[in-house]
Amino acid sequence: MARSRLTPEREAELYEAVLDLLREVGYDALTMDAVATRTRSSKATLYRQWGSKAELVARALRHNKPVSLAEIDSGSLRGDFHAMLELTDDCQMEKDSALMRGLAHAVHNNPELLQALRELLIEPEMTGLDEVLRRAVDRGEISADNPALRLVPHMLIGAFIARPLIEDQPVDHAFLSGYLDAVVLPALGV
Amino acid sequence: MARSRLTPEREAELYEAVLDLLREVGYDALTMDAVATRTRSSKATLYRQWGSKAELVARALRHNKPVSLAEIDSGSLRGDFHAMLELTDDCQMEKDSALMRGLAHAVHNNPELLQALRELLIEPEMTGLDEVLRRAVDRGEISADNPALRLVPHMLIGAFIARPLIEDQPVDHAFLSGYLDAVVLPALGV
Repeated sequence: MARSRLTPEREAELYEAVLDLLREVGYDALTMDAVATRTRSSKATLYRQWGSKAELVARALRHNKPVSLAEIDSGSLRGDFHAMLELTDDCQMEKDSALMRGLAHAVHNNPELLQALRELLIEPEMTGLDEVLRRAVDRGEISADNPALRLVPHMLIGAFIARPLIEDQPVDHAFLSGYLDAVVLPALGV
Repeated sequence: MARSRLTPEREAELYEAVLDLLREVGYDALTMDAVATRTRSSKATLYRQWGSKAELVARALRHNKPVSLAEIDSGSLRGDFHAMLELTDDCQMEKDSALMRGLAHAVHNNPELLQALRELLIEPEMTGLDEVLRRAVDRGEISADNPALRLVPHMLIGAFIARPLIEDQPVDHAFLSGYLDAVVLPALGV
């Protein structure tokens, strides 16, 4: 893969710069020129390595989530969910929440971005989450036909988007931890 | 109030035009000039009647929701929730969902819009929802100390935002109805 020509350190540096720009100006105003300037690289290099702005952004977001959810295996669903929370500190969580709000809007006008996010970010995360939920079904914690099983991502996205909107409060561990216990686990019958 | 100088028909026409523009171009690109042109009114009139773009947009959104949730009283929480769904047809629901995605992004950069939405839209809706939930508590359907009581808006917003993002499907009655039964009511212990 062309991508392998970069050192992992350089790749991480590029992804960080992309996420910084994304938070500063949003997806629509983010240009490959700005990424090239910020990272002292050439636009040709960026396009050769990533093909498109959509793919670069999706890979940067994926890089931001280095641990696969499927690797978490504490022995209980509640333990797995709370272990997921521990992967991110409050400051990072607020940053993620701002990114998510921006992207929820941008995908509406950018089908290519939605496609890249689905393939590179949403599907791997969903697969990891499915794995965590499947183990809970296998352990007998959740009934295999519980209709809330396929709605966990919706519940979690709601917590992230609605908290700043409704309560003017950032998403943090205390809130998400309470939300898991009050909403997600009861809906799953745990 | 200055607002009363417009006929209700004219006011409704103006609000419809604002919502159309909002869906077409988004909040940031929506100008009072465009509203004036589209509605054949003067910018001076718009500012005199509504004071600011943020207030005009918030009032247009509120106008879009003419029935107060508190007026719904079917005798059971499940009945009330499903009656809420019946207020909106699938086509309107998809339009609302697109608006909501756009606004969730716009409020991030427009504190004045967030303030206007809170006062004119979010708080009245939350008050109506609280009333529906309070009656369910009074009937003994929900325990008064259930922590999910204050998280219902988050669950509902999640359904609206996540469905198009994750499943590439519009929000419709069938989905929301299933979500209420699989997530919201079980979290409330109903």
